Amino acid sequence: MLALTILGNNSAIPAFNRHPTAQVLQNFEQSFLIDCGEGTQLQMEKYRVRNSKINHILISHLHGDHYFGLIGLLSSMALLGRKHELHLYAPAALKEIIDLQLKSAAAHLSYDLVFHPLVKDGLILEEKKIIVSCFRVQHRIECWGFLFKEKKNIRKILPEEVKKYNVPTSFFEQLHQGIDYITETNETILNSLLTIPSTPPKSYAYCADTIYDEQLGEKVKNVDLLYHEATYLHALQKRAAARFHSTSIEAAMIARISGAKRLLLGHFSSMYETLDEFTKEACGIFKDTELAIEGMCYLI
Amino acid sequence: MLALTILGNNSAIPAFNRHPTAQVLQNFEQSFLIDCGEGTQLQMEKYRVRNSKINHILISHLHGDHYFGLIGLLSSMALLGRKHELHLYAPAALKEIIDLQLKSAAAHLSYDLVFHPLVKDGLILEEKKIIVSCFRVQHRIECWGFLFKEKKNIRKILPEEVKKYNVPTSFFEQLHQGIDYITETNETILNSLLTIPSTPPKSYAYCADTIYDEQLGEKVKNVDLLYHEATYLHALQKRAAARFHSTSIEAAMIARISGAKRLLLGHFSSMYETLDEFTKEACGIFKDTELAIEGMCYLI
Repeated sequence: MLALTILGNNSAIPAFNRHPTAQVLQNFEQSFLIDCGEGTQLQMEKYRVRNSKINHILISHLHGDHYFGLIGLLSSMALLGRKHELHLYAPAALKEIIDLQLKSAAAHLSYDLVFHPLVKDGLILEEKKIIVSCFRVQHRIECWGFLFKEKKNIRKILPEEVKKYNVPTSFFEQLHQGIDYITETNETILNSLLTIPSTPPKSYAYCADTIYDEQLGEKVKNVDLLYHEATYLHALQKRAAARFHSTSIEAAMIARISGAKRLLLGHFSSMYETLDEFTKEACGIFKDTELAIEGMCYLI
Repeated sequence: MLALTILGNNSAIPAFNRHPTAQVLQNFEQSFLIDCGEGTQLQMEKYRVRNSKINHILISHLHGDHYFGLIGLLSSMALLGRKHELHLYAPAALKEIIDLQLKSAAAHLSYDLVFHPLVKDGLILEEKKIIVSCFRVQHRIECWGFLFKEKKNIRKILPEEVKKYNVPTSFFEQLHQGIDYITETNETILNSLLTIPSTPPKSYAYCADTIYDEQLGEKVKNVDLLYHEATYLHALQKRAAARFHSTSIEAAMIARISGAKRLLLGHFSSMYETLDEFTKEACGIFKDTELAIEGMCYLI
């Protein structure tokens, strides 16, 4: 299971108490911070996201509403005495900015910040239970989306059954993998008697800031939850395109093309005080649409 | 009259809903933003400080809790279509950071950002009703304090009296300056019959981040309101000195030495959940001490 917490859902200018983009994706082991607009560390405190659990930060692009909060978070982690490595995945130019800011403050981080410049579509991170890849999206400057996929979960062992058939614990790892057990008397005990399948692995795609681009559908095919920006309502489709952004309806079109199970809309323009119209428009194209609301946790 | 609004009163790590340093000093004409920690633009929105009124921003030093909110504010001003000049007074290295961040975003500001590197103690700005100077303070890196002084106010004209003596409006400017009026029949009408003195000009000193330094007393002599950092209570005096910070009692000592009328304490360490002890300690040395509380407006 994955859990996505929204820390900021607004576009460039903060408005109506909405903050610039930041999200935290969690599995049982750790947290991934996706983009880090100004005020993210304050939002993390507000919504009880522990920064010590974050080992990976992914920055989609270098427009300020997606990373101006990063240097403050990195600094606070150091002031709090963090010792364990932090991995940062971002466009290459971010490293120079961070280095310059640290130098100007005569500051040193208390931990290793491992910088991974985003270079080409593909795998950027493989952990025990999850793999993460990046893909280019079409925006005014270099911009990346991220795809998180849980690995196939192991089968769950039935305690009563393994006891009944005297399966030794040394064989449990094979049971998890679906292998049948052969007893000392050469009897085959079918794996399906001893285990049950786990929940299927889940996936989450973060499409960052992007103009309407049908090719995205292929890149995020069949994800369980698709986050797609919807900076404007569809009446402003021309403005959206001119600024390399999307509308509610365009986001819904991508969800439909991709075969996503659910759609989450975010990155709302500060011209909109209320947001209900976004779901109303999108639901006409793609029914399972929700708004990304700050502080809300979406289970996947 | 001057009015000081506190937007952030905390030191490096945000805590207990306290934000990093930022203040706005206003007279009837405009607003000066002093330091700009992360989240300042959000605090400005919360406390109804209009950013279009800000024509001068002063940054004391390049520790993040004093400037990480600046680039976001500058960007938002551009997105809101600001056209009029903005003056920025700061350590020289800040320009390189801003330029790099704008370049990485392929962004251009919609207004002229006039950068004034702080180089030596003395006048940095003279407006119609106020003069601003800077002075070096002792901190771990280059750091500056700021002194705001209202110019001498003009005398106020008494409408009934100028009517009685038939003083032409063309002479009003001279009346404001305290000059006697001589009638057509060569009679001298004393200025003191026609005008009353205005309120005396006020002054405010912002001492930024500093170790205890008695020489500060001379630099901020007799100000109406003195802001002095008090990162720690006095029990942690050694820690304060090691980190080039001050304690509540040290701040009060500077207020006493300087002959300040009132003292405002701020830049509290995030280790303190409550702040009452700060005033308690300081009041023992300097009675007119207040805490800088976010959202509060202090009239000078």
